[in-house]
Amino acid sequence: MSDIVKEFNDYRAKMNDKILADNNKVVKRIFNLDTNAFQEGALDKKTKELLGLVASTVLRCDDCVKYHLEASYNEGISKAEISEALSIATLVGGTIVIPHLRRAHEYWEAIEQHNVESNL
Amino acid sequence: MSDIVKEFNDYRAKMNDKILADNNKVVKRIFNLDTNAFQEGALDKKTKELLGLVASTVLRCDDCVKYHLEASYNEGISKAEISEALSIATLVGGTIVIPHLRRAHEYWEAIEQHNVESNL
Amino acid sequence: MSDIVKEFNDYRAKMNDKILADNNKVVKRIFNLDTNAFQEGALDKKTKELLGLVASTVLRCDDCVKYHLEASYNEGISKAEISEALSIATLVGGTIVIPHLRRAHEYWEAIEQHNVESNL
Amino acid sequence: MSDIVKEFNDYRAKMNDKILADNNKVVKRIFNLDTNAFQEGALDKKTKELLGLVASTVLRCDDCVKYHLEASYNEGISKAEISEALSIATLVGGTIVIPHLRRAHEYWEAIEQHNVESNL
Amino acid sequence: MSDIVKEFNDYRAKMNDKILADNNKVVKRIFNLDTNAFQEGALDKKTKELLGLVASTVLRCDDCVKYHLEASYNEGISKAEISEALSIATLVGGTIVIPHLRRAHEYWEAIEQHNVESNL
Amino acid sequence: MSDIVKEFNDYRAKMNDKILADNNKVVKRIFNLDTNAFQEGALDKKTKELLGLVASTVLRCDDCVKYHLEASYNEGISKAEISEALSIATLVGGTIVIPHLRRAHEYWEAIEQHNVESNL
Repeated sequence: MSDIVKEFNDYRAKMNDKILADNNKVVKRIFNLDTNAFQEGALDKKTKELLGLVASTVLRCDDCVKYHLEASYNEGISKAEISEALSIATLVGGTIVIPHLRRAHEYWEAIEQHNVESNL
Repeated sequence: MSDIVKEFNDYRAKMNDKILADNNKVVKRIFNLDTNAFQEGALDKKTKELLGLVASTVLRCDDCVKYHLEASYNEGISKAEISEALSIATLVGGTIVIPHLRRAHEYWEAIEQHNVESNL
Repeated sequence: MSDIVKEFNDYRAKMNDKILADNNKVVKRIFNLDTNAFQEGALDKKTKELLGLVASTVLRCDDCVKYHLEASYNEGISKAEISEALSIATLVGGTIVIPHLRRAHEYWEAIEQHNVESNL
Repeated sequence: MSDIVKEFNDYRAKMNDKILADNNKVVKRIFNLDTNAFQEGALDKKTKELLGLVASTVLRCDDCVKYHLEASYNEGISKAEISEALSIATLVGGTIVIPHLRRAHEYWEAIEQHNVESNL
Repeated sequence: MSDIVKEFNDYRAKMNDKILADNNKVVKRIFNLDTNAFQEGALDKKTKELLGLVASTVLRCDDCVKYHLEASYNEGISKAEISEALSIATLVGGTIVIPHLRRAHEYWEAIEQHNVESNL
Repeated sequence: MSDIVKEFNDYRAKMNDKILADNNKVVKRIFNLDTNAFQEGALDKKTKELLGLVASTVLRCDDCVKYHLEASYNEGISKAEISEALSIATLVGGTIVIPHLRRAHEYWEAIEQHNVESNL
């Protein structure tokens, strides 16, 4: 597995467990909502993932971008679709988005690499 | 025509003309890009409008939200689809998004009202 | 009743009703959480209101500031305590917070005025 | 005098007086620093005003933009210089800056109009 | 001493010294204000630290969060109080705050670990 | 060559090449605009670099700050001028800017060090 994908997911899982162990009702419900909000509804899951990706990108949250990139990959969203979504984020959010674009491209490559390797 | 829709569009058109009359190359090209970025490509226009709407909402830009709501309406996007897109924006962006949600709902109603009246 | 307090509360109540009538599960739960999060817990309600006020101020959300100012007033928080909380928000958030400080002071006066009048 | 320039300055002066009457040391010193920071130093006042204008624009603080536009006008900064500074703000901050650009152009016109009238 | 606490404090102290060596009056006064603003006043130091923590969290400034976590620990603020303060920050600031929540929990653990070790 | 300057520039160049290889028209034009916007015009290049630096600093984009620091250095902008520009950014953007100030000072030193070494 590609280092940066596995590292991110391991750290995320470990710390989420610790946060949830706090048993804070507000935080726990926000975590639940985060799962529910991206389920199929009036909009399909693919569109919702792209919305989550663009929201995360314009708010310049690298970890949120990573999460939505992997979820998008798992929904079968293509690189071309990701690139167009990110281009809208860059236009709306300005050139300060570009460093996040660089890291998003690097992470997408790592996701692709990871999936090639796990299919061998 | 509903007041707040017409007022917004008139002010926007008048001031955009003045901005473009400045003949600043960078600003003019950004205006052009804004038109191009939402054209059909790997993603369809409807998806792109929703991406623009969610980006504008999490960045809490009321005027950008208004613009994308009307463009979404003209693309045939339903109220149910808008509501789901805005729910993702509210979850990702937090409760500070809620005041913008109120104004978005008010503006969507004004758009509907305007279109009923112009079809009479 | 002071105009700007009543106007804000009426508009807020009317639009919240419309948003909740949409029956979007994510948004409804976020509204519920917003009520729960400010209940007495490890921290008392007064401290929590001040946290909500400062979060709203540094994020420069005037409507959120108004809401927390009135909730703070109802919790018996003094003007001196509000001023110190807002001074921390101004230092952390910078001089771009100052215009929101002006509107916060204006709104606090309106709340005081409203409560004097309703006690007559 | 042009309405929106006078209205803004009157409201700003009145509310600043009330804020300073609170006698909060932190806020008072931040107000003082705001005056000092834009004095001639390694950089001249004109450059500093443009820095303040661009910072205010990318942070999308309309009242801060208004303040720096008038200060820039009083330093003899030309419309062409303002337009270039704002074009950098729009590129760096993205299309969400455009609504603030519209209001900046409107306010600059009001400043020019006010100064023509007061020289008659 | 725990690595990440010591590393952060060492880097912070070293670079603050270099910044202050510049002798820029505005920056020096802002540093001074940062010390003054969190002193006992109408609000006690504990409440003020929590305000600083929540402001830093919703503005998603990891280094500021680290600083206020350690100051909170030194004021005797409990983990339960920190968790509630951070839950308000997450609700107000949205799910983009969650990655900062993960790092805050990790840093709080490191602070606890450091203090156990230095008491041996 | 100093590690952090070379590392940043190498990563930036490598990832920009990959982004541009995507051939997304919107992103390519934004990259072009970024070059054009900082050319001599009504404002000289030095002033424009300082505007880019301050915009990047208040928006708290470390990579953008690094880029503009090196471009500023190459335009012959002095440390004293940089410090004053950054002091305005800190006042306008608040104490959350300070961690970025620390990294900016560290990077400026690295640029100076790199240039001493390459002149030997």
